[in-house]
Amino acid sequence: MVEKPIVAVNFKAYYPYSFGENAVRIARDTKKVWEETGVEIILIPPYTEIKSVLEVVKGTEIKVYAQHADPVEPGARTGFIPLEGLKEAGIHGVLLNHSEHRLKLADINWLIRKARGLGLKTLVCADVPETGAAVAVLKPDMVAVEPPELIGTGIPVSKAKPEVITRSVELIRKVNSEVIILTGAGISKGEDVYAAIKLGTSGVLVASAIVKAKNPYEVIKDMALNGIKAFKE
Amino acid sequence: MVEKPIVAVNFKAYYPYSFGENAVRIARDTKKVWEETGVEIILIPPYTEIKSVLEVVKGTEIKVYAQHADPVEPGARTGFIPLEGLKEAGIHGVLLNHSEHRLKLADINWLIRKARGLGLKTLVCADVPETGAAVAVLKPDMVAVEPPELIGTGIPVSKAKPEVITRSVELIRKVNSEVIILTGAGISKGEDVYAAIKLGTSGVLVASAIVKAKNPYEVIKDMALNGIKAFKE
Amino acid sequence: MVEKPIVAVNFKAYYPYSFGENAVRIARDTKKVWEETGVEIILIPPYTEIKSVLEVVKGTEIKVYAQHADPVEPGARTGFIPLEGLKEAGIHGVLLNHSEHRLKLADINWLIRKARGLGLKTLVCADVPETGAAVAVLKPDMVAVEPPELIGTGIPVSKAKPEVITRSVELIRKVNSEVIILTGAGISKGEDVYAAIKLGTSGVLVASAIVKAKNPYEVIKDMALNGIKAFKE
Amino acid sequence: MVEKPIVAVNFKAYYPYSFGENAVRIARDTKKVWEETGVEIILIPPYTEIKSVLEVVKGTEIKVYAQHADPVEPGARTGFIPLEGLKEAGIHGVLLNHSEHRLKLADINWLIRKARGLGLKTLVCADVPETGAAVAVLKPDMVAVEPPELIGTGIPVSKAKPEVITRSVELIRKVNSEVIILTGAGISKGEDVYAAIKLGTSGVLVASAIVKAKNPYEVIKDMALNGIKAFKE
Repeated sequence: MVEKPIVAVNFKAYYPYSFGENAVRIARDTKKVWEETGVEIILIPPYTEIKSVLEVVKGTEIKVYAQHADPVEPGARTGFIPLEGLKEAGIHGVLLNHSEHRLKLADINWLIRKARGLGLKTLVCADVPETGAAVAVLKPDMVAVEPPELIGTGIPVSKAKPEVITRSVELIRKVNSEVIILTGAGISKGEDVYAAIKLGTSGVLVASAIVKAKNPYEVIKDMALNGIKAFKE
Repeated sequence: MVEKPIVAVNFKAYYPYSFGENAVRIARDTKKVWEETGVEIILIPPYTEIKSVLEVVKGTEIKVYAQHADPVEPGARTGFIPLEGLKEAGIHGVLLNHSEHRLKLADINWLIRKARGLGLKTLVCADVPETGAAVAVLKPDMVAVEPPELIGTGIPVSKAKPEVITRSVELIRKVNSEVIILTGAGISKGEDVYAAIKLGTSGVLVASAIVKAKNPYEVIKDMALNGIKAFKE
Repeated sequence: MVEKPIVAVNFKAYYPYSFGENAVRIARDTKKVWEETGVEIILIPPYTEIKSVLEVVKGTEIKVYAQHADPVEPGARTGFIPLEGLKEAGIHGVLLNHSEHRLKLADINWLIRKARGLGLKTLVCADVPETGAAVAVLKPDMVAVEPPELIGTGIPVSKAKPEVITRSVELIRKVNSEVIILTGAGISKGEDVYAAIKLGTSGVLVASAIVKAKNPYEVIKDMALNGIKAFKE
Repeated sequence: MVEKPIVAVNFKAYYPYSFGENAVRIARDTKKVWEETGVEIILIPPYTEIKSVLEVVKGTEIKVYAQHADPVEPGARTGFIPLEGLKEAGIHGVLLNHSEHRLKLADINWLIRKARGLGLKTLVCADVPETGAAVAVLKPDMVAVEPPELIGTGIPVSKAKPEVITRSVELIRKVNSEVIILTGAGISKGEDVYAAIKLGTSGVLVASAIVKAKNPYEVIKDMALNGIKAFKE
């Protein structure tokens, strides 16, 4: 079903890396890699950078997602952004339930349904294989299982806990045969992407390794090429 | 200390009013009123609209604030935006503790201090005169007392509960002689702004009356002119 | 697997009904019904009433659960009660994720695992059949699907939305063949318990119909007898 | 106004220290110290231990407070306990806004007012002198300023940061001449209580030093005697 490796880049809220000119630079580097390799890329900038990132990737197949969505209807909700408002900004999808911004179970379900109705994709995170499977029951477009203890460490889940990935694939496939499975936490290099795909996923969710890189282009390119290699073999 | 009436416009998250072209239109209408009257205007759009609103009001003295700030340091905080990120987007200040997005007391204090260090202004809401005075102790730039039961009703606090305004001014001035005092909730017309200023405040915090208006320009203009009248008399 | 109908009584926080002598009276009435019918009864009082309710039902097979558990380890957690503390108070299990006290997905999973390790049962609520199935993937002892819009209305889910019950059973059984399935929301009389069991569940989660009843004994007895009837037929 | 030193003992949620027989033992030790010294003692056990602690101190002037109160009215609020329910359990007051369980500003105000209406005392925590003064504006019975970075360290605020105490007294007295001022964080021995009182407070809020002590009696006695000494001199 998935024909290309997926690299989803969570910009998080690093300063100054995730904001302003830095955010634009990551988008530009990504665009270059997309033009050179054609892998599926999802950029996930802070709310305030959505429009400038979209501007950069216009005309490509790169997708832009929001980092979170509040479980609210539009209206008198000062400081919250409903999915309708995010869609108006131009996003293609939304990351939900990241370990740094967890959601209540009922709200995850509500947001997946609402997003689908608006034509937005959902990439939902989970902390362990079991919650990954629970999420999969709710039929999002993608599930990413990320052990929180490895997030931001630079120790890739594919090396430190490959059994988390294989177990995630096993439990998720028992309840959902279609959802796209990603993995993340500590993903740092192309070889981590290669390993993640070989262990049964369609790609990775990555953050600091790209966002805080001296040369984001090189890291993304390395990941893209290794992803393609893993898919072809 | 304050020489001009203040009209602060909270865009909230009305759909489609607060987003996209509608947000830009409100900014344009406001700009026109500013050019014609010179009143102090603060625009408070959703995060995703900050940059486009700033683009419109460039070159004017209109200020743009964020609707909320998360009490977080920059870093691995998916879906949150630290003050540094908001500042990078270009804002001049931030609205805090709106009744639709209340904050913990310790976080209000932390955010006021942090904003000040970054050169950002703070406009902090409170629900009753007592909490308005508590906020004033923390020395934000502005305090706005808004009875939640009147917010969004179109019944102006200045008519329905003028004693809330006078009591707010009384309690706040006991503990802080400098903070700018605004009021809000149900403010709909120029005469409400006039009354609010006559009751001792420097202006108003207003939302739906402008944001959902057929002709925002007319409403803002009416409020600006009445504010000036109240200041002059 | 389940041999007797289950009636779980959520005391909630009605005043004065859920507290003090009233809580003790409900426990006494329940004890009498248990002695007369032998149905499986779970009492779920406020934290402050756990010990006095346990005192009343000592020597019976009636179980006492807490209404909620905070996802915290023991320690410096002022105002929170970890599962170890609840266990020390004598409870047999815990209600989790009630629609009035929803939990994050990762926390539901963590609490189910932790409770199991401590020898405590878990009864986890869900708002719709889909989230009921998601919860079932996490292997609690019991799942109760309760449409929030019917909770507290007196309009029983078994009459107003029987398809919610049949769909819950269908989706939950796809992913978990062993979990005990309850239903709730608006359950008022014995006939609602009868219907709930006939639609495929093992019993009900009920609150105000018993807790605020003039004669709790009569309501519980009616529910117990109808539950037995449904099980036997 | 305050004639005796105050020692408020926050049991927190240490396991097994704060629960069951351990909680009862602390209450007994405290009772003995009260009989021997007559100092003002406030015991703050977990919800589940309120009744057994009250049982122990019956007939004394020792007060029992809850560790937290949820800002809710009685009703369909599963897992929350409104002030009415806590009062029914027999408490004399409530600790609010502890740094481990912070509250929103509006809720602190609401709870103080509601508690007063029910005849319950309020002891409200704050993290720094400024928020201590903000709280004092809301007129609780007591304010306790506790620097979070010292809580649980065994490094007493009175030694490490005496200026926090003097500054708290200074700022609080500017806005409220009657509120009782306590301090806390790292209070370990009698001499810390002595210092706290000499710096201008009426006593201390203490937790692990008593709750996790091998011999709670000795620690409480030491604190009581030093408190009396500081008051007399």
